[in-house]
Amino acid sequence: MNIQNILSANAKSMRRSAIRDLLSVANRPEVISFAGGFPNPSTFPVEDLKTIMQEVLEVESTSALQYGPTEGNSKLRELLAERYKSQGLQITKDNILITTSSQQAIDLVTKVFIDPGDTLICGLPSYLGALQAFWSYQAKPIGITKDEELEVVVKALIGSGKKPKFVYAIPDFQNPSGITMTLQQRKDVLAVAKKHDLLIIEDSPYRELRFDGEEQPLIYSMDNERVILLGTFSKTFLPGFRLGWVIAPTNIIEKLIVAKQSTDLCAPVFDQAVTARYLEKGLFDKNLKKTIDLYRTKRDQMLSCFEKYMPEGVTWTKPEGGLFLFVTLPEGYDSTELFNVAIKENVAFVIGEAFHCDGSGKNTMRINFSFMNEEKTEEGVKRLATAIKKMLETAPVPAATTF
Amino acid sequence: MNIQNILSANAKSMRRSAIRDLLSVANRPEVISFAGGFPNPSTFPVEDLKTIMQEVLEVESTSALQYGPTEGNSKLRELLAERYKSQGLQITKDNILITTSSQQAIDLVTKVFIDPGDTLICGLPSYLGALQAFWSYQAKPIGITKDEELEVVVKALIGSGKKPKFVYAIPDFQNPSGITMTLQQRKDVLAVAKKHDLLIIEDSPYRELRFDGEEQPLIYSMDNERVILLGTFSKTFLPGFRLGWVIAPTNIIEKLIVAKQSTDLCAPVFDQAVTARYLEKGLFDKNLKKTIDLYRTKRDQMLSCFEKYMPEGVTWTKPEGGLFLFVTLPEGYDSTELFNVAIKENVAFVIGEAFHCDGSGKNTMRINFSFMNEEKTEEGVKRLATAIKKMLETAPVPAATTF
Repeated sequence: MNIQNILSANAKSMRRSAIRDLLSVANRPEVISFAGGFPNPSTFPVEDLKTIMQEVLEVESTSALQYGPTEGNSKLRELLAERYKSQGLQITKDNILITTSSQQAIDLVTKVFIDPGDTLICGLPSYLGALQAFWSYQAKPIGITKDEELEVVVKALIGSGKKPKFVYAIPDFQNPSGITMTLQQRKDVLAVAKKHDLLIIEDSPYRELRFDGEEQPLIYSMDNERVILLGTFSKTFLPGFRLGWVIAPTNIIEKLIVAKQSTDLCAPVFDQAVTARYLEKGLFDKNLKKTIDLYRTKRDQMLSCFEKYMPEGVTWTKPEGGLFLFVTLPEGYDSTELFNVAIKENVAFVIGEAFHCDGSGKNTMRINFSFMNEEKTEEGVKRLATAIKKMLETAPVPAATTF
Repeated sequence: MNIQNILSANAKSMRRSAIRDLLSVANRPEVISFAGGFPNPSTFPVEDLKTIMQEVLEVESTSALQYGPTEGNSKLRELLAERYKSQGLQITKDNILITTSSQQAIDLVTKVFIDPGDTLICGLPSYLGALQAFWSYQAKPIGITKDEELEVVVKALIGSGKKPKFVYAIPDFQNPSGITMTLQQRKDVLAVAKKHDLLIIEDSPYRELRFDGEEQPLIYSMDNERVILLGTFSKTFLPGFRLGWVIAPTNIIEKLIVAKQSTDLCAPVFDQAVTARYLEKGLFDKNLKKTIDLYRTKRDQMLSCFEKYMPEGVTWTKPEGGLFLFVTLPEGYDSTELFNVAIKENVAFVIGEAFHCDGSGKNTMRINFSFMNEEKTEEGVKRLATAIKKMLETAPVPAATTF
């Protein structure tokens, strides 16, 4: 049967993850991979989980193994509401929907607000998984660089009859750039959204992982009607539980609940029960502190290896938190070409182009520092530097960019 | 902010689950509810889970708590492939995608094949969750009763330029009717699908729960290119893990994998690891046998209570498996009215109209027999019979249907 003729326009608009394809090459054991966005498994609180899982099975198996409410575990939503209230959000648990990963939250928000051809604003670069969700509903993401003015871009879009449905932002330690928005930038985004009556999707998977510098307020804390805040336990607790959440005004949460019903009925129920107990016992915060200390050390080591080994002309961000730094090769070089050289040196990364919805960013790449151990990190950066030097020597800068 | 103006056409096409709204009324402790589709918690293998979860945490925590591959746990897919091979399916694990519940499988299949306005064929009645997924992508489900000929309906649709994308069927112990398709009916559906080059979605959540009668082959076992088979652990193991699967030709599985990537990246990883071990140890089949024995007893009790208490004119199906029987009131009566009477008697069910995509079936209702204990089942049926008698006495059959 030829299925090409009967695929939906959504299916034709979907794009396979470039990361997924890269990872399959990078999975050889001899490759040191900085490609994934994986938390370090040493942060998984295995012993505490043993205790808590037995408790859940002992005390609440009847509900924890059964179907659960679509909006999620009531206790877990209360605990999350408390945490966010301490950050200035005026919310209750009724503003919270537990999702099967924050990726699902992006999917549901897109499904509820995007019609084919609709525009939205995102960063250049931006999170690839969000771009994939946008494309899968035939959205047209419009990327803006950190130097472009949001107001100008939005006005131009409105002028051409393509008013964006929302602004998608990752204000803290952005994936992939590692950059954090200043307070003024947050206020500016909100002001533009208010002026033109736009939604803001504030995607915040890394916020809890701040190593140093000053915490900036959540955009949601400055507004009560147009911000949809996304969070996840995947980076601070366990990716394997697939638990995230959406915080939004209740009129939006109600729509997302209906959308979630037909998508998977409810998020993993047992995993939610375990997570609620883990939070309630104060173990989450204790473990988070250790995780932050570990990742700070890893970031520092990665940065010092970069200082030590990278050839001149290569630049990189110095993130205050999160999992990634973003590397820029000299203008005119292509990180896809570099990937092919690097993989022969047994080191892998993600090409930056994958994060640019307009195909730009060819001379950039994303480097993860949370997963690898100290020894492999140094060896991997050495290999990467070798690959870059080889590329710089053999591939002269294209003429167009040297004049 | 007024979000009505910026909702997508998909969001406007979504329908809240009637069951969800009914259940909120039926949740009062004094109500005996036959409304849910919940497995009996006494079938949850709590002690085995205690052992296996400790094992997973001891032996494979690094992978079981981390992100996993989109297609699912490799061992679990192998074990499922083996099970289905013994039922005559020519498949390998590459034909299997683990989904976050079989509800997600329905959602993904719909997203990949349905454009707004596309038709598809389903039963009158059919599974409400599937209807919700269809509507959420603006599909037009065309319901057919068991007495209508599929070939005639498909031809008429093709004639009017509305060729259906697929036939959605639940061949074993259908939800809500409890009816099982005969071998001939399965062959007929496949013949029509072949003749007109249609896909078949063979949704099979209850198949393993056969109490008596002769097992019929899966439609997938008769065809290798146009059947998409859906299964779940929610009815035979644990709903709280949210694990289902799709089996399909690899060209379709590849599309569903890309669709799943942007939806939630992967199904719950820890839960998959536990489930794989549970299957591998042979505990699944042992527990399934006990579950079947329990549900057979419960069905028998429900049927004998119906025989004993129901007034004349009320009829019901006698399912050979699954979780439900389907009840028909005398023509002209409305189960929504009955619901209002019944809830005063402290008994609840799901109105049959909810399962009919064309709004028919007003005189029908779905009764679950897996969840309630023996005592409450008898008391609940008594109350339901009382409510029906009250309705029959006070609400005369509308004139239009008596002539």
